[in-house]
Amino acid sequence: MFCIAGETLQVYFLGTAGALPTPNRNPSCVMIRRGSDTLLFDCGEGAQQQMMRARTGFLVDAIFITHWHADHFLGVLGLVQTLSFNGRTDPLTVYGPEGIVEFVEHTLAIGKTKLGFDLRPVLLSPGSIVRFDGYQVEAFATCHGMVSLGYVLREDGRPGRFDRETAITLGVPPGPLFGRLQRGGDVVVVRDGAEVTITPDQVLGPPRPGRMVVYSGDTRPLHHGPEEGLTGADLLIHDATFDDTERGRAAEVFHSTAGEAGEAAAALKARQLALVHMSSRYTSTVNHIQDAGKSFDGEVIAPSDLMMIEIPFRE
Amino acid sequence: MFCIAGETLQVYFLGTAGALPTPNRNPSCVMIRRGSDTLLFDCGEGAQQQMMRARTGFLVDAIFITHWHADHFLGVLGLVQTLSFNGRTDPLTVYGPEGIVEFVEHTLAIGKTKLGFDLRPVLLSPGSIVRFDGYQVEAFATCHGMVSLGYVLREDGRPGRFDRETAITLGVPPGPLFGRLQRGGDVVVVRDGAEVTITPDQVLGPPRPGRMVVYSGDTRPLHHGPEEGLTGADLLIHDATFDDTERGRAAEVFHSTAGEAGEAAAALKARQLALVHMSSRYTSTVNHIQDAGKSFDGEVIAPSDLMMIEIPFRE
Repeated sequence: MFCIAGETLQVYFLGTAGALPTPNRNPSCVMIRRGSDTLLFDCGEGAQQQMMRARTGFLVDAIFITHWHADHFLGVLGLVQTLSFNGRTDPLTVYGPEGIVEFVEHTLAIGKTKLGFDLRPVLLSPGSIVRFDGYQVEAFATCHGMVSLGYVLREDGRPGRFDRETAITLGVPPGPLFGRLQRGGDVVVVRDGAEVTITPDQVLGPPRPGRMVVYSGDTRPLHHGPEEGLTGADLLIHDATFDDTERGRAAEVFHSTAGEAGEAAAALKARQLALVHMSSRYTSTVNHIQDAGKSFDGEVIAPSDLMMIEIPFRE
Repeated sequence: MFCIAGETLQVYFLGTAGALPTPNRNPSCVMIRRGSDTLLFDCGEGAQQQMMRARTGFLVDAIFITHWHADHFLGVLGLVQTLSFNGRTDPLTVYGPEGIVEFVEHTLAIGKTKLGFDLRPVLLSPGSIVRFDGYQVEAFATCHGMVSLGYVLREDGRPGRFDRETAITLGVPPGPLFGRLQRGGDVVVVRDGAEVTITPDQVLGPPRPGRMVVYSGDTRPLHHGPEEGLTGADLLIHDATFDDTERGRAAEVFHSTAGEAGEAAAALKARQLALVHMSSRYTSTVNHIQDAGKSFDGEVIAPSDLMMIEIPFRE
């Protein structure tokens, strides 16, 4: 099965701060919207207000937490209480590593107010896959000195380019049958008085990969092999807590420097690199971007809070 | 004992939103700084960031929570983790009504990271008093459909005005002895070869009251009698969730309208009224201020987030 609709894929950087927020950077939160789906990756304190500021609306379909440092999850309770206040009744699943069940228990206990919907914890491990319509989210192991996960959002493959001229030559009339072929179905046409079956492979080019976004969470630089499926991301969002003057410190506290994030992006053949989890000690991102560019030839960004980028189709 | 130093008394409105924050208003948080002391009254989500934005620093001496709706306490964990991260080792006391012990337990459990200092819960009831140097904080009962407290910050009385001319006439030389008399101590001078004792009442006017700030938290309009000590505040910070078109709704959900806040301010003979806990439905505070002014002749303000006001001495 292929996904043929040209769904938008947007990434909102709602919180790009490190462990300490700043007046302008909130704690970790990345929202990915694919078509009409909205997923949150981490949900730091104040995430709900950042959603208001970015005008994303509140139709959250799932929340994925990377690990149990508070700057990655403290916004969940405020957000779910606001969702409840706004009348949500659809259950909401919060995915995360070991500790997720206790997290939801404590969150509900501390919240006092009963939610109008079910908040459902789901425990993921490296290799876990959560299927959505047309894409999936996969969990992978990261290295942060505690149980921690990163996440890949991977779209299903798209069918090859449709060869309209060939289809017409084969006797397929322009119209709904074109769509059927594009979706992978056979079509029967009458040619020279005889029924002829046209198969998709006659009119479609080679399958095209879907888009892919990797979110590292907090971690030492990703160095996963190709078998682990992190290679070739359209966007790699990577821990870049420090600039390269702090390589030793980064190793001690299980974070990455911008240069290390660039090395990871190069090794994983990413197309674009977003540096996040910026320590509050930095007031400029110039060094970070330069450090990342030493190894990585693709585009490097150090997004400000509320920045949104759109991931284009590759072809 | 009197407090004679002219300590500053400043009120920072760090969060003035109702149950739902807005892009510009954070959940409830009022900081009162008296001299070098810093107290927080409620600590909604994002309070630590508001403190950064208002440049108040992080030297918090105590936190007082009014009740267990999340918009009043969700910022505690983020704040205390940041304090710990910044190296705090002094214990921090969080005062609140029934539930405070469990609140701190859940907060520490959810936080995972061990704090570098003790977070100490203290259970207060109506009538509880917490003494500080030169002032005290008193808890009183409010009406919010659940266990809830309001707080009064009440300065100790100040000595009467010092009559310098009389003191000199009585033989007291200008200098340290003036201060001793002002602080309530007797002074012995030699006059015409004999020791004479000068008592403060000879050189001081009638005692002057200290300043007083009342914070209502979420509540139906305050209507406490004079015996309850809420009369004559320099500043009354009162729930004004709704404007007066929503009197019925306010009663249903145990909040107040701006008009009701004005009536409370008039009944309690406050000097200034600050309307807070503004529902997110309002984009203007014009109606609130008008409604409050119908019964109350003093100054009415509807502070924006980060606004600071200074409470002057009365004379």
